[in-house]
Amino acid sequence: MSGNGSLPKSTTCPMPIRDTEEVLLAHGGGGRLMAQLIEEMFVPAFSNQHLDQLHDGAVVDMSGAKLAFATDSYVVQPLFFPGGDIGSLAVNGTVNDLAMCGARPQYLSVGMILEEGLPMETLRRVVESMRDAAMAAGVTLVTGDTKVVDRGKGDGLFINTAGVGLVPEGVVIGARRLSPGDAVVLSGDIGRHGIAIMAEREGLAFETTVRSDCASVAHVVQELLAAGIDVHCMRDLTRGGLASALVEIAEAADRQIDLDESLIPIDPQVQGACEILGLDPCHVANEGCFVAFVPACDARETLRIMRNHTQCTDAVIIGGVSDENRPVVTVKTAIGGTRLLDRLSGEQLPRIC
Amino acid sequence: MSGNGSLPKSTTCPMPIRDTEEVLLAHGGGGRLMAQLIEEMFVPAFSNQHLDQLHDGAVVDMSGAKLAFATDSYVVQPLFFPGGDIGSLAVNGTVNDLAMCGARPQYLSVGMILEEGLPMETLRRVVESMRDAAMAAGVTLVTGDTKVVDRGKGDGLFINTAGVGLVPEGVVIGARRLSPGDAVVLSGDIGRHGIAIMAEREGLAFETTVRSDCASVAHVVQELLAAGIDVHCMRDLTRGGLASALVEIAEAADRQIDLDESLIPIDPQVQGACEILGLDPCHVANEGCFVAFVPACDARETLRIMRNHTQCTDAVIIGGVSDENRPVVTVKTAIGGTRLLDRLSGEQLPRIC
Repeated sequence: MSGNGSLPKSTTCPMPIRDTEEVLLAHGGGGRLMAQLIEEMFVPAFSNQHLDQLHDGAVVDMSGAKLAFATDSYVVQPLFFPGGDIGSLAVNGTVNDLAMCGARPQYLSVGMILEEGLPMETLRRVVESMRDAAMAAGVTLVTGDTKVVDRGKGDGLFINTAGVGLVPEGVVIGARRLSPGDAVVLSGDIGRHGIAIMAEREGLAFETTVRSDCASVAHVVQELLAAGIDVHCMRDLTRGGLASALVEIAEAADRQIDLDESLIPIDPQVQGACEILGLDPCHVANEGCFVAFVPACDARETLRIMRNHTQCTDAVIIGGVSDENRPVVTVKTAIGGTRLLDRLSGEQLPRIC
Repeated sequence: MSGNGSLPKSTTCPMPIRDTEEVLLAHGGGGRLMAQLIEEMFVPAFSNQHLDQLHDGAVVDMSGAKLAFATDSYVVQPLFFPGGDIGSLAVNGTVNDLAMCGARPQYLSVGMILEEGLPMETLRRVVESMRDAAMAAGVTLVTGDTKVVDRGKGDGLFINTAGVGLVPEGVVIGARRLSPGDAVVLSGDIGRHGIAIMAEREGLAFETTVRSDCASVAHVVQELLAAGIDVHCMRDLTRGGLASALVEIAEAADRQIDLDESLIPIDPQVQGACEILGLDPCHVANEGCFVAFVPACDARETLRIMRNHTQCTDAVIIGGVSDENRPVVTVKTAIGGTRLLDRLSGEQLPRIC
């Protein structure tokens, strides 16, 4: 299932699914409860080699070609926010999931669930935003579906997109490829999407508006691969943020990842908002930001290519893969200590995407 | 967009989208308003050769192979009904859309939107039903996503599925292939899905329960194609029923289709329910029933193959393609007259799928 990983091995789970009688908001939060829901409900029912990869998308064989296939539903509130809207999010989110598989995103499907009474003008703005985002990402919307639910049974507009793209010959991306010494390259500053949504929702005012980083990273990924960078693993930092993505990868790889907190770029306003709201920026969602694990010898060229792209000018190496076989992420803190990074456990930011 | 067609050419449209300020339930009904929404909102924004086919799915080129790609969201109420549930519907609906493209359905994605408070037991039953339906249809669920919306902002559970499959070399399915003399073969009796849902919702009682026809038709379609039947066009009879599907095809092909009403198989209880409810069975939704347009010389073999499959034992030729170049569907009525079949115009059965 998208962007989610296996049951934490190194932490205890406070409330197994079997003891939870109802779905909670936190089951959609990208954190620990969600991982449990997937592990205990979906994996046993649907278990197969593709789903078991628990990546952002599946890579399947299609008459000899490697096809990446990904989906996400978007339920973000509000529908429009600084830097994007549910339409651009629905295109870029799925495009990025395909890109994280090493694929060139090509075609998208769109399923809309409209609530009776949604203003036509709202729908038109969202549709136009999807068109623009698709054009920018180089994908074509080829098929779709529209459903309408009665007033009070939806929330304006939900969008699902699914996408397909081909993974070039020789490209294999996955947590299992992590090797000691790999550099962890972060494509840009973190936390902007989550804070943009929270600020809009909670009416927080900043000196300047924090804008979501919502954007396609497909072109930068394609350039990395075309340049021959042997990318071992990639993950976009959506629900659950940098922390959940890295913990997931560490667990899937059974490898320790070591980070240096002082190297992680965070916009001062995002940092300030996180302090006010009591959030760890490492848990805040992003929509145009990813980590790439590359061999140390490729790290410099990776940075050079990333920094040529507008949304990756802050790209930086934030750590590396240790030779310890422990599924944990350590963080050297600014004051010189070391802490373990844990995935998001609660419902920090419901309906962030 | 799935299961919907071009703007009716031969009828006037009572309320253009530009004069409708809000989304109405009927915009999701599979009828005329929905066709307008698609024509006036989605097609101008996303126009491309694939979307312009307005088929159940798109057939796109993937490094030389023909890939069928389809999606549908499912918002049916109630979640469980005689003959199926939202889970089996979500699998079979998308499998059938792929089958209608001539593809062998292979992989599905699943996007779930859960409402906070949904009983875990309900989710578990739906997931198990999806597993069973996927196994029966021969498809694998390879990737997915789960979102949770707050209480009162959803309706228990919405499911989106998207699917991919390969179209065999030489198979070309489309309204443009309709030729004078083609037989119109209907795979089974119509109206059961819609009446099963309506009965459950309205508390109608029959002598025996009307069960939805919800099932995959992928295997029967594959057998037709493997036998060398030159299927010109296929369409499953979902929202809007037999009438909307045939009117859509007649318009896309610019060909007259002539039906004989007395040949259309309808279960007596479905017929009775339609009379009580004032519904035309030709407008009632199906979920395991399709029409195939085949050359007259292939009609008998088509029937033979269909009737070997449990859900197609009532397969029958209900009419043919005329040599008139008029985008209409005529029906010879039981009392000897002739009427024009029109697509569903209103919101007969909201949330039927």
